[in-house]
Amino acid sequence: MNLEITAQSPTSRARVGELRLATGSVSTPAFMPCASLAAVRACGPGEVAEVGVQMLVGNAYHLFLQPGLDAIEACGGLHRFMSWPRPLLTDSGGFQVFSLARPRDIREEGVSFRSPVDGSEILFTPELSVEIQDRLGADIAMPLDECCPYPAEREYVQRSLERTLRWAERCRAAHGREGQALFGIIQGGVYPDLRELSAVETAKLGFPGYAIGGLSVGESREEMLEALRAAMSALPTDAPVHLMGVGTPRDLVDCAAEGVDLFDCVLPTRNARHGSVMTWDGPLHILNAEHATDPRPLEEGCECPCCRDFSRAYLRHLFKARESLAWRLLSLHNLRFYADLMSRLREAIATDRLAELRSRLSAWTQRDRS
Amino acid sequence: MNLEITAQSPTSRARVGELRLATGSVSTPAFMPCASLAAVRACGPGEVAEVGVQMLVGNAYHLFLQPGLDAIEACGGLHRFMSWPRPLLTDSGGFQVFSLARPRDIREEGVSFRSPVDGSEILFTPELSVEIQDRLGADIAMPLDECCPYPAEREYVQRSLERTLRWAERCRAAHGREGQALFGIIQGGVYPDLRELSAVETAKLGFPGYAIGGLSVGESREEMLEALRAAMSALPTDAPVHLMGVGTPRDLVDCAAEGVDLFDCVLPTRNARHGSVMTWDGPLHILNAEHATDPRPLEEGCECPCCRDFSRAYLRHLFKARESLAWRLLSLHNLRFYADLMSRLREAIATDRLAELRSRLSAWTQRDRS
Repeated sequence: MNLEITAQSPTSRARVGELRLATGSVSTPAFMPCASLAAVRACGPGEVAEVGVQMLVGNAYHLFLQPGLDAIEACGGLHRFMSWPRPLLTDSGGFQVFSLARPRDIREEGVSFRSPVDGSEILFTPELSVEIQDRLGADIAMPLDECCPYPAEREYVQRSLERTLRWAERCRAAHGREGQALFGIIQGGVYPDLRELSAVETAKLGFPGYAIGGLSVGESREEMLEALRAAMSALPTDAPVHLMGVGTPRDLVDCAAEGVDLFDCVLPTRNARHGSVMTWDGPLHILNAEHATDPRPLEEGCECPCCRDFSRAYLRHLFKARESLAWRLLSLHNLRFYADLMSRLREAIATDRLAELRSRLSAWTQRDRS
Repeated sequence: MNLEITAQSPTSRARVGELRLATGSVSTPAFMPCASLAAVRACGPGEVAEVGVQMLVGNAYHLFLQPGLDAIEACGGLHRFMSWPRPLLTDSGGFQVFSLARPRDIREEGVSFRSPVDGSEILFTPELSVEIQDRLGADIAMPLDECCPYPAEREYVQRSLERTLRWAERCRAAHGREGQALFGIIQGGVYPDLRELSAVETAKLGFPGYAIGGLSVGESREEMLEALRAAMSALPTDAPVHLMGVGTPRDLVDCAAEGVDLFDCVLPTRNARHGSVMTWDGPLHILNAEHATDPRPLEEGCECPCCRDFSRAYLRHLFKARESLAWRLLSLHNLRFYADLMSRLREAIATDRLAELRSRLSAWTQRDRS
């Protein structure tokens, strides 16, 4: 793995780059849609690539539970299983273990919980997480980490990030898959000094790339940006940085300005399945009565398969009828909007025109997180 | 509209033809998937055409209720609304009024019922049905008919078919849309003499094509074929014949042998959404454990978008996860199977090898109707 920085903003940490991975190259800053269960929900892989998506994020926790590793290995690994021969990252599942698995028991060794699929007892350790991701075979893997809730006591967050550091060391020791880069993950909640501590210590361990986890979990926008800045200040500038679970169009611009290279978030696809459409004039809801007889596409000039062939009136009808084609078409439109946004963002960074892009996004003032 | 018969079986009524319609030509016998709500469920129009579908069936009853005619007209008619610039037939909605709308009151004037969408009182008359279909603008429209349940008393069936004849006359008088062919509909339940009576009288009214309704509603295979033969014996041989709501692969072959040119049925798409996959080795169920780690496609050699890119193991995983991509991919496969079947059927008729095709379908012995 290698990040070539092709443009550096003279007025911020923002940069444009090419991230070269085992299965291809990604222009950064890039947005990676979630394909936790080996599919971008409601969409096929070919059309996702067609709207400009460069890289996807799978999830070790979900895929370990279902379909299980045997099925994926029998098909030649995750890329071939999901028919996505392009760059792919797998999350360790730390976030899901801590947010979804109940009851769970966090110990130094790992986290134990009952499988929600078959009720069996599972001990998720750093080593198991690395083994799962080795067998999945994505281009980038993540160590097991603890993602603290918001709010969380400072003392708890500190103890937790120290354990995450020890787990990172174990993950690094267990990891050996060629062609797969294992990132380090920064935690520390909303406490800037803890974020800096986590970044310093994780960077000392030495990883080819870093992820910033545990943000966009309920904290204010200012808290998020402050925690992000504290982490960024202590990370090496030549390694790619992935801000996990972020975010809204405005978040992407503001956080790229802090030097973030990779983003992932369920927002564009989840919003689409709830009828919320992203446009350069701000969000619109497809169920609104004003669209009932509107023959226009969601956005004039958009080249996505949805806007190319279908009217707002038709999409509203499909959505009301709970027809899955609606979820797919709205998802593809939102993914195209995000791909377009990232392309404009790279252009704005390279030409030092971030302020212009921010004003183009003025319709997106509210913090619209999922 | 014009049906050119290009091959006639020397040993049966079966024939191969080209049905020329306002928006294109259809090779017959043809199978038309259902797009009752202006979409083939779970599929996009482009990919449906790609797997070999030539013509679709919309539904006046469903579309009148939602989204309503204003939305469809605002988008330039049903073809443009659903982005299907190819041949399209609309059913009058008679079957749906009688099978779905409750409570309902059948009078000479028409059928009244409460809208299941907004509770308003609706009087569905032959004239309204024609007006709706005129405004939808499909290539072929159907008159309002009464579809009797099975079983039904002979006397009731006779009174009903006589009313259907009077309604057919009113529909013909009301119909005037250029480029749209209004078919006549034959009823008569499972009573061969009533089927013949209905066919004789409907043919006397004179339509450019005929549909046979009210079969595949619960009667035995033998009853269905006998009723079909009685109707066919009294219909002009130069007009296209559409057998409504039929059927299984075996039904399609056996009924094409009786001279049927057009079929429609929810079977391939509904079965797909329930995980039942159609192959030349018979049906398979995607949830069966044997597929869990199977890297093979649903059917070796199949050129559908599902078999081209995805394994049984992946499809089983998606289906278990209730991911709508599974419904779409299985639907496309089943539609491809039907398109392939019809193509082989046309070839078998033209070369007088129907018996061979029947033996190829030996895995499909059970009557698998939805």
